[in-house]
Amino acid sequence: MPQVQITMLEGRTLEQKRRVAQRITEVLVEDAGASREAISISFVEVSKENYASSGVLVVDKKKNS
Amino acid sequence: MPQVQITMLEGRTLEQKRRVAQRITEVLVEDAGASREAISISFVEVSKENYASSGVLVVDKKKNS
Amino acid sequence: MPQVQITMLEGRTLEQKRRVAQRITEVLVEDAGASREAISISFVEVSKENYASSGVLVVDKKKNS
Amino acid sequence: MPQVQITMLEGRTLEQKRRVAQRITEVLVEDAGASREAISISFVEVSKENYASSGVLVVDKKKNS
Amino acid sequence: MPQVQITMLEGRTLEQKRRVAQRITEVLVEDAGASREAISISFVEVSKENYASSGVLVVDKKKNS
Amino acid sequence: MPQVQITMLEGRTLEQKRRVAQRITEVLVEDAGASREAISISFVEVSKENYASSGVLVVDKKKNS
Repeated sequence: MPQVQITMLEGRTLEQKRRVAQRITEVLVEDAGASREAISISFVEVSKENYASSGVLVVDKKKNS
Repeated sequence: MPQVQITMLEGRTLEQKRRVAQRITEVLVEDAGASREAISISFVEVSKENYASSGVLVVDKKKNS
Repeated sequence: MPQVQITMLEGRTLEQKRRVAQRITEVLVEDAGASREAISISFVEVSKENYASSGVLVVDKKKNS
Repeated sequence: MPQVQITMLEGRTLEQKRRVAQRITEVLVEDAGASREAISISFVEVSKENYASSGVLVVDKKKNS
Repeated sequence: MPQVQITMLEGRTLEQKRRVAQRITEVLVEDAGASREAISISFVEVSKENYASSGVLVVDKKKNS
Repeated sequence: MPQVQITMLEGRTLEQKRRVAQRITEVLVEDAGASREAISISFVEVSKENYASSGVLVVDKKKNS
């Protein structure tokens, strides 16, 4: 029954998302005993202006490194 | 006081969202005893590339059915 | 395909949750065109110490009203 | 270790988000004892069609006020 | 930079969670190009009264099957 | 209108949460132009078994440091 939400920077390719969805589902089936058909995964994509770690937006980190 | 987040495929019309927001609020007032003015609802819309069930992205299901 | 998360104060009865889950699912089927079996709803219950509106925790509002 | 998600109307400027991310991180370090490098903040921006309070979409409130 | 939230029924063992956290992190590093130290995962555990699919609480499904 | 969800380890005191809720609300009013009465904040507290960074549960980090 897991609901999975993955909040991440936009820009991953379709193939990357396909692989991630497939493999995370496998993990939850194999290691958490979830039933495959009950697993839903959403990717919530945000821009570099909309994600911060350590108090700094990603867009600002890019400027400096 | 409920915060409601509904993560769903993009593409619903304004009228559909209007109805959903209105009716879900009614449900929470009537059946959960929430006060109307304390209820907030957000629709987080994702593309067919960004939603998977049973390990398969919606965009891939469409191809096959 | 909607994933619904309802974050609310703890304390609703089983019967209240049963009704809310049932009716919100109806709303999403009828007004958003979702397929019933794809809808999942989670109730994330928090204590009065863990919810604030207008900057004030619910536990503190109770003291004053 | 906090994960922070802020769901809000789109339209804030980069400078506003920069300030919010910086200051919320400070609050969590100073008042919750979180370590700065463990704090991540995401802004999930939604349109006026995708946010409702008291059962009314923001887009509809704008029409009337 | 992904923030991952997994909302699931309570009852998984520590070993199960350990494996899931480890493996999902691997997937995001390998297939989404995320940096390991930027990935955070939270398990939000809910009771059988607090999770529904197809409009039916898990606690009620258990009664019937 | 922001909905804020803060997912963090359990164990903060009431006074800490009170301060965090108050100050984050101020930040959103002052820097994001949100109206105070529209801001809701939920603390979703998780145990050390239910939070991982870099692929390692907090409960396992504690063992080693």
